[in-house]
Amino acid sequence: MGTQNTQGTEQRTILVIGIGAGDPDHLTLQAVKAIRRADVFFVVGKGADKSALTDLRHQMLEEHAEAPYRVVEVEDPSRNRRPMDRSAYTSTIEDWRARRGDLFERLMLDELAPGQTGAFLVWGDPSLYDSTLGILADIETRGRVSAAVEVVPGITSVSTLAARHRIPLNQVGRPVHITPARRLPEVGRRDDGDIVVMLDGGESFTQVEGEGLWIYWGAYLGTPDELLVAGPLDEVRDRIRQVRSEARARHGWIMDTYLLRNTDGPAQPSAPSDPA
Amino acid sequence: MGTQNTQGTEQRTILVIGIGAGDPDHLTLQAVKAIRRADVFFVVGKGADKSALTDLRHQMLEEHAEAPYRVVEVEDPSRNRRPMDRSAYTSTIEDWRARRGDLFERLMLDELAPGQTGAFLVWGDPSLYDSTLGILADIETRGRVSAAVEVVPGITSVSTLAARHRIPLNQVGRPVHITPARRLPEVGRRDDGDIVVMLDGGESFTQVEGEGLWIYWGAYLGTPDELLVAGPLDEVRDRIRQVRSEARARHGWIMDTYLLRNTDGPAQPSAPSDPA
Repeated sequence: MGTQNTQGTEQRTILVIGIGAGDPDHLTLQAVKAIRRADVFFVVGKGADKSALTDLRHQMLEEHAEAPYRVVEVEDPSRNRRPMDRSAYTSTIEDWRARRGDLFERLMLDELAPGQTGAFLVWGDPSLYDSTLGILADIETRGRVSAAVEVVPGITSVSTLAARHRIPLNQVGRPVHITPARRLPEVGRRDDGDIVVMLDGGESFTQVEGEGLWIYWGAYLGTPDELLVAGPLDEVRDRIRQVRSEARARHGWIMDTYLLRNTDGPAQPSAPSDPA
Repeated sequence: MGTQNTQGTEQRTILVIGIGAGDPDHLTLQAVKAIRRADVFFVVGKGADKSALTDLRHQMLEEHAEAPYRVVEVEDPSRNRRPMDRSAYTSTIEDWRARRGDLFERLMLDELAPGQTGAFLVWGDPSLYDSTLGILADIETRGRVSAAVEVVPGITSVSTLAARHRIPLNQVGRPVHITPARRLPEVGRRDDGDIVVMLDGGESFTQVEGEGLWIYWGAYLGTPDELLVAGPLDEVRDRIRQVRSEARARHGWIMDTYLLRNTDGPAQPSAPSDPA
């Protein structure tokens, strides 16, 4: 039942499926249908620390995938996570991406027959701070294996953060900036819009001048372990640090996201009540 | 079966449900469950121009809502959409929001008995350039009617745009800026990240210096009428203008979104092939 390509041979299909921010009910009907189409699922593990996330993907497959299906588990190439300057960071990421490319290319060649459909389940949305699409484009450029790529959008941790705090991300008529934590100092200085910070390896909110800023913080969003704190940054900063370090010790890992809102704007769109 | 509030009377519940960018399969499992819980749905019409969007919401309810349920249709307060400067724009929006607040407050008082659950179905995600949450916060502040608000995140047109073009929104390690079209001149001049433009009443991409920029454009995203164009801005600008004006004439309205990508960045994460 595969797609014929221009050479008349059957083409491989790769589905890149956004599965949402941690809640199994974040799956869209489109994602469920895509999961039912796949012959093989590629599950890329992030090490023992985050095995809870791998377990959740297996549960989703048990509930939604259509037997018979195969799961191929692989270990993500290791990556240097020490602090470093921007050019060292970029080359570290490029090196890691190249090794991930080798891995994905081998999976497509060895684990997927022509005409078959493979799927990557991606946390959140495949378009936001996820490398899968870029790596698949690299593989296409290399030319050793070709596949028709389809992307299923997912619920982002950004939308989940806002939903759980019951706030809009933007103020009326203003922009929203989404930034990796390491770029916060540059993005934060210049703009009047709200700022969402992702990929925070440390506690970047401790580096920000708090005057006039509210923070809406969340960790393990969408999961039963979810944590939420909101308030004026200067007032809640220490509480977030404490909550964060206790949770990190308890779980062995943490994934958090937050919104910084400049309160000089028009009427503060605060939540009707505090969900924290 | 309603929630008891602190006074011991039954509280109203309002569900603000993100229903995705136009494809009925963008509904999440969480959104489907929320739709099943509601007694009353408030459908706010935008005038005859966009009746296709209202029809789609009715189809979703027919498919997922649990009988018996009621639908209350109301007309959105009219709003001045002439071009204007920022302070006039802000006061126009504030005036329109206040009138929308009056309307929603009346709906909650007249159409929802204590203990019942009402739902607003919001296109895309309730957190991104949608006024519902801000208006509900205003109503809470007024104090005439109170409700427990729950928010269900949705697939944004931004994620849909990226999925359909099969591209990431961000380049490696860089920020993403989401902006209303009217703020593009300011946001666009200053940053190295990618820019997503929403709420484009005109053709704001014609005002941008195209050198070094790619545009990924989409209209009616997620629907059978979807249109996609991608390429160097200077090369595809005129084609987008033509496609856009023909489509607008055919449908009577248009809703489009686009990403501007600075190609001075690291390896262009282009799509494996052109979906347009």
